[in-house]
Amino acid sequence: ATLAAPVFAQDAPTLSWRLASSFPRSADAIYSGGENLAKYVSEATGGKFSIRAFPAGEIVPALAVLDSVQNGTVEAGHTASYYYFGKDPALCFDSAVPFGLNTRQMNAWVNHGGGMDLLRAMYKKYNIVNFPCGYTGTQMGGWFRKEIKTVADLDGLKFRCSAFAGEVLSRLGVVPQQIAGGDIYPSLEKGTIDAAEWIGPYDDEKQGFHRVAPYYYFPGWWEGTLQVSLYLNQDKFNALPKSYQNVLAQASAMATNQMIATYDAENPKALKRLIGEGAKLRAFPKEVMEASYNEANKVYAEMSAKDPQFKTLLDSFMSFRNETVPWLRVGEGSFDQFMAAVTRK
Amino acid sequence: ATLAAPVFAQDAPTLSWRLASSFPRSADAIYSGGENLAKYVSEATGGKFSIRAFPAGEIVPALAVLDSVQNGTVEAGHTASYYYFGKDPALCFDSAVPFGLNTRQMNAWVNHGGGMDLLRAMYKKYNIVNFPCGYTGTQMGGWFRKEIKTVADLDGLKFRCSAFAGEVLSRLGVVPQQIAGGDIYPSLEKGTIDAAEWIGPYDDEKQGFHRVAPYYYFPGWWEGTLQVSLYLNQDKFNALPKSYQNVLAQASAMATNQMIATYDAENPKALKRLIGEGAKLRAFPKEVMEASYNEANKVYAEMSAKDPQFKTLLDSFMSFRNETVPWLRVGEGSFDQFMAAVTRK
Repeated sequence: ATLAAPVFAQDAPTLSWRLASSFPRSADAIYSGGENLAKYVSEATGGKFSIRAFPAGEIVPALAVLDSVQNGTVEAGHTASYYYFGKDPALCFDSAVPFGLNTRQMNAWVNHGGGMDLLRAMYKKYNIVNFPCGYTGTQMGGWFRKEIKTVADLDGLKFRCSAFAGEVLSRLGVVPQQIAGGDIYPSLEKGTIDAAEWIGPYDDEKQGFHRVAPYYYFPGWWEGTLQVSLYLNQDKFNALPKSYQNVLAQASAMATNQMIATYDAENPKALKRLIGEGAKLRAFPKEVMEASYNEANKVYAEMSAKDPQFKTLLDSFMSFRNETVPWLRVGEGSFDQFMAAVTRK
Repeated sequence: ATLAAPVFAQDAPTLSWRLASSFPRSADAIYSGGENLAKYVSEATGGKFSIRAFPAGEIVPALAVLDSVQNGTVEAGHTASYYYFGKDPALCFDSAVPFGLNTRQMNAWVNHGGGMDLLRAMYKKYNIVNFPCGYTGTQMGGWFRKEIKTVADLDGLKFRCSAFAGEVLSRLGVVPQQIAGGDIYPSLEKGTIDAAEWIGPYDDEKQGFHRVAPYYYFPGWWEGTLQVSLYLNQDKFNALPKSYQNVLAQASAMATNQMIATYDAENPKALKRLIGEGAKLRAFPKEVMEASYNEANKVYAEMSAKDPQFKTLLDSFMSFRNETVPWLRVGEGSFDQFMAAVTRK
């Protein structure tokens, strides 16, 4: 028994890691993904592998999570990979791209469609190992001060939106705005911007956007879902016992299911309250959706021509989308549509 | 260091468990849920907690998994709780009920809608602790030798289907058939039965039903999804170190995501092949769907009047359904429908 002791100790070393989040504590459903991951890892290892999560800005700026994990300032990060669109647009395939995948498709592409291998290959140059660690579901299209009835209504529209959506929408006359979360409300109120998208009903409600920009558009076609990511420094990950590496994977899966459960249970209640307080729900007109889709395809063609890694990921991602969409229409789609019709009565 | 050794040993004891599956190895996507669970638990514990999975019938009959876990013949089971409809219809809320929840809703109800507490309370009398351990997605409505155009076409129809679906459909004249998986094909071929449902394209293809009953109906409204369950003997579970209990939860989450990924990636390809070989895809007529929905509601009312636990579960499950369906139509539904329309061009 005495001889065995050091073996046990090596198998399950006591470790303390830090995880930097890109999300503020106030966006609790998405922020909790990182905290839950940390909690689950501790619980699975009897407290031996401890990870402390820090909200955006506390130890690392919100958008510096990738750099900080890459250079080992922190061992782990919880972030949305499309925040780094300016650095490397291919990173967006680990989060969301315009007219991409919904939650089920994203999970399937990553876990059974070759997606994970391609993402891991991409992350090598960042010295990062990634795991999916949360989904938001399809996001909303945002809050608009005025109605959007035609493509012409987009001309000159100052819209606070994700960078990739901005890249597409700028071709239709939109003037994309980069504004930090906390500054959106005053900008909308003053009319410095005309519209802003954040996440969905549960998070948007807390910001109060409906009081200053009542038209609430759907769908957020640039985020059929957002896959939130756990980033781990490659060297630190490689140095872990195999069991801890596997615990990280499994804890991420549980944090993923918990996050989408929270959104799916809380968004309906929040949407109802928002409508009760005057939010006006609107679908983007078909003409706007189609024009956006066409511009997105042009952007994809341009980016693919310049960036072979982007093209490799795009081709896999979009073939998977095109192959799975018709099936999802059949069983899932017809069931969902019947339930929608019959429960409305 | 020598003093610490016994503590480590207690923290991470070496254990060998057996898991009895209700699924045959040939239904590999669903069967793998139990094998993956076992693999992940071993990987997270450095091989110390070992679980061996056995296919249906090898150590325990397919439909005796609940009994065997309850009485401790095996420590664990991987099964579909609606197999025990005859024993206790309330168990179906842990798997699938007619016109119930889709995959996203089921995950949300269980993990953030109060579902898990109700299920755990129900399983107490079976000395079982449950974890979700896989989803199939919305299943297909099955293979029919002749087309179903009206409710009258159901009269006298010998349909091999799940027990709960049979309970509903018998009110519309269907004669439900209980036939083991391996006997379905010959019964369909000879015309002993008129129709049969199994799972979905990926599993159905292997059985070859399309060669003898070409009309392939959707949706399987009795399974908006199937939640597959991990059953653990309560006493054995309680005796585990906390860390192993948590590993079981997390390994189940990963096995869950892996199963639905497999179905979502493989079903589209299988459906395409089936259509290529002559399967004729058909939607159940609206009149048939609505008549079934009305009969299902009557069945629910009757069962609730007799069984308070069934009623408690039904009320929670269906309120959750009715609250979440309108939201899922908005963002998710409009995104999915646009993608379906635009990728068809």
